[in-house]
Amino acid sequence: MSRRIYLRLKSLEEGKRAFLERFPVGGFRAPELIPTVEACGRVTASPVFARLSSPTYHAAAMDGVAVRAEDTFEAHVDRPLRLTLGIQAHPVNTGHPLPAGTNAVIMVEEVTEEDDGTVLIEAPAYPWQNVRRVGEDIVATELLLPQNHRITPYDLGALLGAGIVSVPVRPKPKVALVPTGSELVSVEMLSDGKVPGPGQVIEYNSVVLAGLIRQWGGDPVRHPPVPDEPEALRGSIEEAIACGADLVVVIAGSSAGSEDLTVKVVEELGAVLVHGISMMPGKPTILGVVRDRPVIGNPGYPVSSVVSCEQIVGPLICRLLGVESPPRLKLLARTSQKVPSKIGMEEFVRVKLGEVRGHIVATPLPRAAGSITTLTRADGILRVPEEVEGVEEGQVVEVELLRSPEAIRRTLVAIGSHDLTLDLIADRLAASGLGYTLASSNVGSLGGLMAIRKGHAHLAGSHLLDTETGDYNFSYIRRYLQGVPVRLVHLVYREQGLIVPKGNPLEIRDLGDLLRPEVTFINRQGGSGTRVLLDYHLARLGLDPALIRGYDREEYTHMAVAVAVASGAAQAGMGILAAANALDLDFVPVARERYDLVIPGDLFHSEGIQLLLEVIRCPEFRSAVASMGGYDPSESGRVLL
Amino acid sequence: MSRRIYLRLKSLEEGKRAFLERFPVGGFRAPELIPTVEACGRVTASPVFARLSSPTYHAAAMDGVAVRAEDTFEAHVDRPLRLTLGIQAHPVNTGHPLPAGTNAVIMVEEVTEEDDGTVLIEAPAYPWQNVRRVGEDIVATELLLPQNHRITPYDLGALLGAGIVSVPVRPKPKVALVPTGSELVSVEMLSDGKVPGPGQVIEYNSVVLAGLIRQWGGDPVRHPPVPDEPEALRGSIEEAIACGADLVVVIAGSSAGSEDLTVKVVEELGAVLVHGISMMPGKPTILGVVRDRPVIGNPGYPVSSVVSCEQIVGPLICRLLGVESPPRLKLLARTSQKVPSKIGMEEFVRVKLGEVRGHIVATPLPRAAGSITTLTRADGILRVPEEVEGVEEGQVVEVELLRSPEAIRRTLVAIGSHDLTLDLIADRLAASGLGYTLASSNVGSLGGLMAIRKGHAHLAGSHLLDTETGDYNFSYIRRYLQGVPVRLVHLVYREQGLIVPKGNPLEIRDLGDLLRPEVTFINRQGGSGTRVLLDYHLARLGLDPALIRGYDREEYTHMAVAVAVASGAAQAGMGILAAANALDLDFVPVARERYDLVIPGDLFHSEGIQLLLEVIRCPEFRSAVASMGGYDPSESGRVLL
Repeated sequence: MSRRIYLRLKSLEEGKRAFLERFPVGGFRAPELIPTVEACGRVTASPVFARLSSPTYHAAAMDGVAVRAEDTFEAHVDRPLRLTLGIQAHPVNTGHPLPAGTNAVIMVEEVTEEDDGTVLIEAPAYPWQNVRRVGEDIVATELLLPQNHRITPYDLGALLGAGIVSVPVRPKPKVALVPTGSELVSVEMLSDGKVPGPGQVIEYNSVVLAGLIRQWGGDPVRHPPVPDEPEALRGSIEEAIACGADLVVVIAGSSAGSEDLTVKVVEELGAVLVHGISMMPGKPTILGVVRDRPVIGNPGYPVSSVVSCEQIVGPLICRLLGVESPPRLKLLARTSQKVPSKIGMEEFVRVKLGEVRGHIVATPLPRAAGSITTLTRADGILRVPEEVEGVEEGQVVEVELLRSPEAIRRTLVAIGSHDLTLDLIADRLAASGLGYTLASSNVGSLGGLMAIRKGHAHLAGSHLLDTETGDYNFSYIRRYLQGVPVRLVHLVYREQGLIVPKGNPLEIRDLGDLLRPEVTFINRQGGSGTRVLLDYHLARLGLDPALIRGYDREEYTHMAVAVAVASGAAQAGMGILAAANALDLDFVPVARERYDLVIPGDLFHSEGIQLLLEVIRCPEFRSAVASMGGYDPSESGRVLL
Repeated sequence: MSRRIYLRLKSLEEGKRAFLERFPVGGFRAPELIPTVEACGRVTASPVFARLSSPTYHAAAMDGVAVRAEDTFEAHVDRPLRLTLGIQAHPVNTGHPLPAGTNAVIMVEEVTEEDDGTVLIEAPAYPWQNVRRVGEDIVATELLLPQNHRITPYDLGALLGAGIVSVPVRPKPKVALVPTGSELVSVEMLSDGKVPGPGQVIEYNSVVLAGLIRQWGGDPVRHPPVPDEPEALRGSIEEAIACGADLVVVIAGSSAGSEDLTVKVVEELGAVLVHGISMMPGKPTILGVVRDRPVIGNPGYPVSSVVSCEQIVGPLICRLLGVESPPRLKLLARTSQKVPSKIGMEEFVRVKLGEVRGHIVATPLPRAAGSITTLTRADGILRVPEEVEGVEEGQVVEVELLRSPEAIRRTLVAIGSHDLTLDLIADRLAASGLGYTLASSNVGSLGGLMAIRKGHAHLAGSHLLDTETGDYNFSYIRRYLQGVPVRLVHLVYREQGLIVPKGNPLEIRDLGDLLRPEVTFINRQGGSGTRVLLDYHLARLGLDPALIRGYDREEYTHMAVAVAVASGAAQAGMGILAAANALDLDFVPVARERYDLVIPGDLFHSEGIQLLLEVIRCPEFRSAVASMGGYDPSESGRVLL
């Protein structure tokens, strides 16, 4: 076993400063001269001055007749002036050049045709009226664009109008992406629907980083995965630089474990300036230089990889282009729960955002750096500074946005019990094309009621059984939402039961079998409707939970329970049929239950909620739900309260 | 002369509604299946569900040893437990699959090597500690992306991680761009530095619109310019639709003049739904349908073309893609001057924005729809609604942003006298790569002092001659900026004189020659330093301004004066040598003057102003100024007050 070498951490600002300033603003290479029509999004390498004026000639700015103003000074409403067409008055349309000797245009509406050869006017024209003079828009030699300017579509018009048909731009920084790891399978190998072998991992970080790099204006070059051998990695870095890479990003292997080769290889080839940045995710980042080119060790966990790339590679590309890093939009939000954080580390916490009654609410997503879906599901990043121990519930914080404020405003926030039909609602909402999305956080039914009470959610899925009456949700609403006006809308009936491995090898028939010593159970968290249902039926049958092995191991969703069973971590868990079906597991029915949506009364008539109600009442939604099995959507959308 | 047919105007909202809803959300064509690695920025055509779980196997989440948790329960700090390597404990690195029979990982830091074959641990492992279980990130069959979702770089990771190597997306809407006008010269014809002939216009609207259409996710197809003949236009529209265009944009000829063919041709081929929208610019917009495809008549003035395209074509492309139109960011700003507007028309006023002491100030740019630089120079759009007659000075208004709030925050607002060296400052600021830009509005020296007093500017260029002392600026600052602490920084000395046509055909030698009857003068506006200088010298020489033909015609910049002379509109104008040189005109020196920058005292030490001072003191700036001629930059940056 090799001893771990701890990283010597630098703060993000300190690390960036030490590194970025070594490389020239504007990059390593000479400007490219490219056709203006292809220059959108590129960055000017030098100031651009107008070659021609625009307009290049005096042009009519209206349809009408062109005249010499001095010929018209006698015209008066009481003494209309007669002008001869073709001599004193020349018909022109907008954009036409003024005929020689004319210096004004009279609008067609103010001209009366007398006969084929003459027109009458009732007012004098003043010089240059209704004329766009040479250079009115652009004067030859004037500065059109400064250097280091990212060219917009509008700019193309100004450039071409000024006769600039090619423009000097910064070369796109060429970024070599070198994934490392003997376990990696290239995406291209997977193309025909193959499944990776045992121990193999699909290499997708390079694809994600390539997408980001293109957005910043870089030119990513993805290399095939390199095995964990120093020789191979050394060769790849040298080849990339020899082939003209402006920077090299080595993905994974950037930490200090026995297979983490990057730091040693970069030290051999050049110099390591920084190894480790006090940010999370993204800590094991390496900032090095090989033959004057930046070489960056990028951590292998997907979220670490992205955060490190956005904090280091993005600003570096922008520096090589000569532009400022595009800052993320920020807004203020209130946290819906406490967010603990480690002192001494800047944390990048992914959050869901939603606007409830004009307040933006931020709900943290799981922190797992290995989980790319914590990024795809995120609306923003809450950065908790190094010196701060965390953020309290309800605290107002600044959040960096990953989606537009408008998109966040159209996000329906569902906090509560998890059900797979919420995914179908999310998809049907998106199908409307109105820009609404559904963001659901799974905290169980009771947690959902709390979220409604605190004003953190637009709706809460709930299936809380009243063990005295056998009815659902009503008594809990009375108890936990006293004084909070809410509506209750039925979503589906669904079957709950025991999810067991395919073929049900332990022959589990009912809840009583959970007490058998060879059965390991996986439970749902306290407060979830499924837990209440389980406990109700255990009590009804007189079964002691203490005798169930694994009763104290909790998961937060039906799918997580199913995964636990599929992976062999448990032999039974309580959940819905759809979750068992999804993973090709077997299912032992226990009960049918009602799953409803709790909606604050004052939000009931909002556009978003009304759209949601339309969705859950439409036939497409119902047939999609029915086809999942274990659901009865026949009363979806019925208002119960 | 043909009579003008007035357009029957619809409001923008009404026009859009009548039109957009006719076309299907998601477009006319079947989805495309494309490789996921190329899918960034595309829009999902159907919901995407995970094919594989991620991780696909139980994986070590730490470097260390994999164990069966149940084997370790006896371990204690007082009674370290011995595990045999290869049998009870298996070295693993992060990401490795757990060996069969193991269910936990102990971190390398918590393991002591006893000898080559055994390790000691001092605490029990609990099941699944430091393990990333199958499906921890993604569970096979779960919804990854809803339909109508624009795919981000992060999404690529989730898709590939879930084994989705190709993804169904909406085809990019194919947009045929058909410029019309017999006077048009295609950009491609201009490629070798040619100058358009008399009456010819460079066709660039299609290039600008193509850039915008690509940003929205459409696929623009630029057609060559079509002459003003109904047959030719008819043929182009029919061919575009036959070739699979999802929508056709006919550029120019959309009004109701004698050469405005679009409305007639679209009526013949299909139907015109709307002709004229009550917005300015952009009024002569046509919304039509030909063979179920949208055909849009887009006005020919460049700013009208852009506004109409952004308001109609953009939302239509988004509808065909199934996504919401990306809304522009908005912020609140105070107007620096009155903005009159016509009742009954929604006006899109281009504004410059800058942040002065935490307040965003909006200064309107000229409204000319023919001037593309009013867009390239704009930071935002102030939309004045139909029912409003205008906006007062100092009113707080909502502005749609064209640049990022960060970029606006780094904009130095210069309001005052115009000088060409301000362009050089702008370029040198951009060269710093720090994101600072200079936005200058030219209102003359006195206007600049007023802007400083009102808090609308960071600096004001000023060259106000005190006609009693012969000194510059000080006495005006005392008079007009009483109680406002300011600093005065010298920029350049420059020569002022008479700008006359090349060769000076009228042999103008001094100001006295301006009184000759054959000389038409072009003046600068009252309050400008140049005007003060002129009036001073006229008075000194005892010359009566009333005898100067054209004394009452005013322009606002040196360049505009030079253009008036170059175009023959005037035979002489007062201005600087550089403006004469720029347009290859002759120059008769009259005086050397001092041009300074007035800076509010409390902003003097801000980062932006300090950077500007650095710029005007650097040798690169001075030599660039000197090379323009007529300038003496030897004391640039000297603090006078």
